[in-house]
Amino acid sequence: MERYEELMWGALTAHTTVSHEEWDFFRTLLQIKTIQKNNYFLKVGDNVPFIGFCVEGLFRLFYNTIEGNEYNKSFCSKGDFVTCYSAILQKKTATFSIQAVMESTLIIIPYQAFTKLFERHICWVIIAKCIAEQLYLNKEMREQDLLLLSAEERYLKFSRDYQHLVDHIPQYQIASYIGITPVALSRIRRKLT
Amino acid sequence: MERYEELMWGALTAHTTVSHEEWDFFRTLLQIKTIQKNNYFLKVGDNVPFIGFCVEGLFRLFYNTIEGNEYNKSFCSKGDFVTCYSAILQKKTATFSIQAVMESTLIIIPYQAFTKLFERHICWVIIAKCIAEQLYLNKEMREQDLLLLSAEERYLKFSRDYQHLVDHIPQYQIASYIGITPVALSRIRRKLT
Repeated sequence: MERYEELMWGALTAHTTVSHEEWDFFRTLLQIKTIQKNNYFLKVGDNVPFIGFCVEGLFRLFYNTIEGNEYNKSFCSKGDFVTCYSAILQKKTATFSIQAVMESTLIIIPYQAFTKLFERHICWVIIAKCIAEQLYLNKEMREQDLLLLSAEERYLKFSRDYQHLVDHIPQYQIASYIGITPVALSRIRRKLT
Repeated sequence: MERYEELMWGALTAHTTVSHEEWDFFRTLLQIKTIQKNNYFLKVGDNVPFIGFCVEGLFRLFYNTIEGNEYNKSFCSKGDFVTCYSAILQKKTATFSIQAVMESTLIIIPYQAFTKLFERHICWVIIAKCIAEQLYLNKEMREQDLLLLSAEERYLKFSRDYQHLVDHIPQYQIASYIGITPVALSRIRRKLT
């Protein structure tokens, strides 16, 4: 647990100062969860009472589209917060699924207990603000990439962002994330090698 | 100015209590800006030193895509915060443009002065957190609609959300927002009437 907590401490204190007293209290809320390859952290329709913080491995977040396909909205790896945040904020059930692409480990933060911290100390409100801003930023960057980059540029960016993990991800799932067919992805990969 | 401020007061105090002392200080930061139809609040490449709060009218936020088209990412109307938030957070220039679809009025909040309020009172951090959460939620809902609703359902939702404004928006811009061609939109409209 300790080496995982260190990673989380780093992520949280990047935003603001957290006193040892606050941190010690916060630690009591946390749990560790390991999820085997291809198993789920969340499925469509699940209640979402917690935020995950990925400390090892890789998750894919995907929608089952109206056409009956799976659409990979994003990947989350070490150091990323991972949850269905819209469901948490709106107190609704998950609208997409979160699956471990390889054996992966999360620190689990119960969301309701987390919001109670807001009354203890301003640092937790600042951290929640920064988490929301980061999640927003990820989404806006993703939208931009889909609109402003070519498929080849999107693939190169993906390969850079996930360079240590890219070999664990099936090609058709990368294609789904980049927004092209597996055939178009093969063509790009052939061109680049 | 006063009737506009009332709208803003309502939007801010929906999230937390704001004392009159804090509000009176906040008011001194605000400016009013009216933008004529088809003029711009922001253009790609502009610095973004402020957040807008729409009190009248309608804006479209759009990308110039890699294919040389305009893609309407969202519309903002009365009661919405409107800015290029990723540019603000990353201290970069705007990656999309914001244009008034009709004569529109904004309350302008200088972002740097706003962040200084965080040291005055926790209420401003809570408000900034809620703004980020709302912007995130809008984006996740938008992504979901594009993936989980049919084009007809997206059109019906758009018509409901912007029912008082829909007649001011050119059809091709609605089509661009819904993610279909103007021809496909005409087909849907004919079917529904």
